[in-house]
Amino acid sequence: MSDCLMSASDAGLAASRVMARCDALAEISETAGKLTRVYLSPEHMRANARVGEWMKAAGMQVWQDSVGNICGRYEAAQPGAPALLLGSHLDTVRNAGRYDGMLGVLTAIETVQYLHHHQLRLPLAIEIVGFGDEEGTRFGITLLGSRGLTGSWPQSWVSHPDGNSITVAEAMADVGLDAATISQAAREVSSIVAYLELHIEQGPCLEQADLALGVVTAINGARRLNCRFTGEAGHAGTVPMNHRKDALAAAAEWMLYIEASTPEHHPQLVATVGTLQCSPGAVNVIPGEVDLTLDVRGPEDQPLAGLLSALLTQAEAIALRRGLTFHAEEYYRIGATRCDAQLQSALTQAVTQVQGRSLSLPSGAGHDAIAIAERWPVGMLFVRCDRGISHHPAESVTSRDVAKAIQAYLQVVHDVACKGDVLAAHADDLHKDEQ
Amino acid sequence: MSDCLMSASDAGLAASRVMARCDALAEISETAGKLTRVYLSPEHMRANARVGEWMKAAGMQVWQDSVGNICGRYEAAQPGAPALLLGSHLDTVRNAGRYDGMLGVLTAIETVQYLHHHQLRLPLAIEIVGFGDEEGTRFGITLLGSRGLTGSWPQSWVSHPDGNSITVAEAMADVGLDAATISQAAREVSSIVAYLELHIEQGPCLEQADLALGVVTAINGARRLNCRFTGEAGHAGTVPMNHRKDALAAAAEWMLYIEASTPEHHPQLVATVGTLQCSPGAVNVIPGEVDLTLDVRGPEDQPLAGLLSALLTQAEAIALRRGLTFHAEEYYRIGATRCDAQLQSALTQAVTQVQGRSLSLPSGAGHDAIAIAERWPVGMLFVRCDRGISHHPAESVTSRDVAKAIQAYLQVVHDVACKGDVLAAHADDLHKDEQ
Repeated sequence: MSDCLMSASDAGLAASRVMARCDALAEISETAGKLTRVYLSPEHMRANARVGEWMKAAGMQVWQDSVGNICGRYEAAQPGAPALLLGSHLDTVRNAGRYDGMLGVLTAIETVQYLHHHQLRLPLAIEIVGFGDEEGTRFGITLLGSRGLTGSWPQSWVSHPDGNSITVAEAMADVGLDAATISQAAREVSSIVAYLELHIEQGPCLEQADLALGVVTAINGARRLNCRFTGEAGHAGTVPMNHRKDALAAAAEWMLYIEASTPEHHPQLVATVGTLQCSPGAVNVIPGEVDLTLDVRGPEDQPLAGLLSALLTQAEAIALRRGLTFHAEEYYRIGATRCDAQLQSALTQAVTQVQGRSLSLPSGAGHDAIAIAERWPVGMLFVRCDRGISHHPAESVTSRDVAKAIQAYLQVVHDVACKGDVLAAHADDLHKDEQ
Repeated sequence: MSDCLMSASDAGLAASRVMARCDALAEISETAGKLTRVYLSPEHMRANARVGEWMKAAGMQVWQDSVGNICGRYEAAQPGAPALLLGSHLDTVRNAGRYDGMLGVLTAIETVQYLHHHQLRLPLAIEIVGFGDEEGTRFGITLLGSRGLTGSWPQSWVSHPDGNSITVAEAMADVGLDAATISQAAREVSSIVAYLELHIEQGPCLEQADLALGVVTAINGARRLNCRFTGEAGHAGTVPMNHRKDALAAAAEWMLYIEASTPEHHPQLVATVGTLQCSPGAVNVIPGEVDLTLDVRGPEDQPLAGLLSALLTQAEAIALRRGLTFHAEEYYRIGATRCDAQLQSALTQAVTQVQGRSLSLPSGAGHDAIAIAERWPVGMLFVRCDRGISHHPAESVTSRDVAKAIQAYLQVVHDVACKGDVLAAHADDLHKDEQ
């Protein structure tokens, strides 16, 4: 491993700058006092401009690509060498926190800032991208920025409307982009060696392990279903308990089963019933029908499929025993994304160097790395966030943790970029496997 | 017991007339093809006029009282004697069935029709009342008709608005009634000896016992509560199962407990969770808060209170164990109404005579008898209805069951009216007890 350890005082200064820049970006919002910044909005363009300035100050060549990602390149020792890509997203959910996405872009700039300041050129170029859309807040379709780089936009996306019936193509035109040139954002596979992303955890595991940093093993796959128990509505006063076909009682039995059996299948699987509606839904009527959603996630596709199958079998059994019917329909499925083993190893070494030990954990939330992994090896570094709160104004990280994150990030960037040829060969092998 | 048994063929004819009259009243609706007839509406007045004609045809003196009940009196052997009161209601819920309420008024008219046809005068007068409001559909307050007779209208009711901000007083004026004369509807306690009401069961017990008729032991008391479990919302992908404070999972555990423990407390107790809302209520968010309603009912107040207390204690325990909080607020309470033992006995004899055996059961639904029981002894006769369905256009009874109901009703009316003096003395005792 080639060392490039930033001093604690330098890291502290860099962290202060990152925190200040997160605050500055949080001011670029469509609503005063509440952070909302969506794809192809005036605020998106203002954030890009701001981040582009910071990239330039870090010695990077800067451009906005044809889908609206802000991009910067810090040239390699040999100009035109392939790049190690760093990034995350600059868009937000509505009434968002200020670190989800932005922290990854701003810490990446600090690693380049350090190389620039010390006039270090590496075997690989370092590129940074601030993706224009990861959350899908405006159009309901996600990862538009990173799928621009991978060249995997479906044709249908350009005519997809937002809540005001403005299509993606129209919204692009509004900010000076041209939907006809979307494919120009796609990068040659050979021009990028690997992708690293730093992100807040958005969960409680690092906090509970008392660690600032962790290494992501995989981004969870997810499946979502609309489910329905159908029984018989009835008068809450006149139908004895043993004559009821109460759809809500059946759903309750199933929900308890879901809660108890999911961790028994595997400790890293999660299952959630997030919404539930009773029909007819009156205080004095036994629910005849209950609609509920099921969201299951896990770091590997096979155990996830096994869990889901067991849950559905049990729902059928509960319905049958109670004289009800059960129906479920999957409407969303995304496979699990494995993080590259070599990148995990490099990240683990760097994290251990900074905080004494490391923790490997899956990511429950989706990230730009899901799309990027379609083309290039990906690695992710997680930073502890307060109580796991995210997608909320209370989202928060400490400057001290961010300092450690920058130290580890610089270390791993330096390490990976110094053995870039090895990774490039590894990536080539991967692509051959796929053919 | 003094016999007055209608022949099967007479009962069949009377039942046919009752079924035809139920159909005729079902046509008097504010919406074509769907039965809705609310208090103080033009349809209420038209139904009163129609029922008044049928009462007159049965030899009764007819009047509409000051709260809009249609009333008829079939004089006793000694004019001016106290009356045995028969009745039920003529108003409906929205999109109602055609038997709930109306069947009780129309079968009562058949008993008087029989006495009139056979020129029988009894020691007690027979009075029939078609109450103008039992359901509370228009004003959200219930039993306005029967509480007119008992003289227990609170002053506040006259200014209570309907959904169009028309007050009860204004609605009265619209149909030619005067809110200033409401108290004139109140009857002298001594003028009525007892009250009998025939009603469809609105539940499945008679059907399951394969019986047309049953005798009501009590009208269930009811208590309704708004309940809330408060946990912690969280990301459905990032919070491991064992770190969750899922308000819906807690509610599910409680609902299963409610279902299992209610019949263990007493087979005639029922408890229902009829509505449930998750907050924030998204497929990918762990519910942080769940609001649900609880409706508990039973034929005796003490066991009902015991059940409710046990359910709330368990909810607290579930919340505590899971690190959540639980809150419940009672917003509706009505005590159980016992049916008079002598009237139950007379009804049981009559029912047994007609169908070979009788079944005693509590009423899960509320009835006019609840209000009347504040002043006079009450008895209720239940008629089987198809699958227990009520408050729905599919509400249905068979003509054959109605024929048996008329036979039993005439028998018990004759029996009670012939021993009227005994009952009157009994009622006097009751009133002395209350003082």
